Amino acid sequence: MFNAVRVRHFENMQYPEPIAKLIDSYTKLPGIGPKTATRLAFYTLGMNEEDVQDFSKALISAKTDLTFCSICGNITATDSDPCVICRDQSRDQSTIFVVENSRDVMAMENTRDYHGLYHVLNGVISPSAGTGPEDINLPSLIRRLSEHEEIKEVIVGTNANAEGEATAMYLARLLKPAGIEVTRLAHGLAVGSDIDYADELTLIKAVQGRTKL
Amino acid sequence: MFNAVRVRHFENMQYPEPIAKLIDSYTKLPGIGPKTATRLAFYTLGMNEEDVQDFSKALISAKTDLTFCSICGNITATDSDPCVICRDQSRDQSTIFVVENSRDVMAMENTRDYHGLYHVLNGVISPSAGTGPEDINLPSLIRRLSEHEEIKEVIVGTNANAEGEATAMYLARLLKPAGIEVTRLAHGLAVGSDIDYADELTLIKAVQGRTKL
Repeated sequence: MFNAVRVRHFENMQYPEPIAKLIDSYTKLPGIGPKTATRLAFYTLGMNEEDVQDFSKALISAKTDLTFCSICGNITATDSDPCVICRDQSRDQSTIFVVENSRDVMAMENTRDYHGLYHVLNGVISPSAGTGPEDINLPSLIRRLSEHEEIKEVIVGTNANAEGEATAMYLARLLKPAGIEVTRLAHGLAVGSDIDYADELTLIKAVQGRTKL
Repeated sequence: MFNAVRVRHFENMQYPEPIAKLIDSYTKLPGIGPKTATRLAFYTLGMNEEDVQDFSKALISAKTDLTFCSICGNITATDSDPCVICRDQSRDQSTIFVVENSRDVMAMENTRDYHGLYHVLNGVISPSAGTGPEDINLPSLIRRLSEHEEIKEVIVGTNANAEGEATAMYLARLLKPAGIEVTRLAHGLAVGSDIDYADELTLIKAVQGRTKL
């Protein structure tokens, strides 16, 4: 009951405008409610001036100095298009790894185990959300494949959920007839994980995809 | 094991500089690790331009357009010192509520049940952290009390932990001889809470402070 009262009045709070506005801005970030936003705003007041200046500039810079690579759709500095990966001729030009967003590229690069190219969809096909193939960075993949005959394999690395699977199926149906090998990341147990914590579907997939020792 | 590998390489990530810098800034906030910072940075890229501009300006404004009230130490706009509470002559000038920070003032104001004045210490006495009475906004409280004989009571609303209690004890010992009534917020059960969830110390305090029905 006490909490309910506090929360109700919380919206009426009258902080001085400069901090109220900062709280407001923090609240716009995902997963940050009014309580956390207030905590962050007061923390900001105590930060050293240079860090706050950097933060302020970084926000603007991220909005203005970044663009999507004109080849693969990965995020890149405006003055560095095509992106470093697309420009790197030492990478395997025969394989394209298709992912949903730039963070997936980073996750993959961090494994240091893949040396081909990428294509970032910046979305997924989602009939329920009304997102079709034309709404994501897919037409440019088709164009890329038709212009570069050296591409032999497309690895579909969309997420392992309904939309990711739908996008993978769409790509497979579209590209296979063109003689391009389309592969999908394996389903299975996470390395180091316990079998009894795995969900049933994952376990079924892990059995189906079992490998010889 | 997989996670360990990911985290290790995470620090080597090579995002384009504009977003890397923004991730870096978000990471400086309390409770925000590299993963969350990355998520927030990419979210920022998708925010509308105006919101990002506002956010950027609010950061600078919070650092430059705010100051501590010259009377009570509460946070206030630079062009509004003394703060609105200190300037409000309709408030009860005989009572000062001493709190650790401006958020506590807001919490108290939100109850709409207190109409006296405040004094914000912007800290607590903490021998373990080497914070003495001179390091917080305490000397100005003493001055304030000596200059305003109409102040009859000081309610000590520091937090109910070791440092808060130490600060309360210090204030009591200092002010009582000067004939000022020093009171402390009651300990007890939170309204709406269950007795069996209360910790033992709180329960003991609640019994000691029991009131007649």
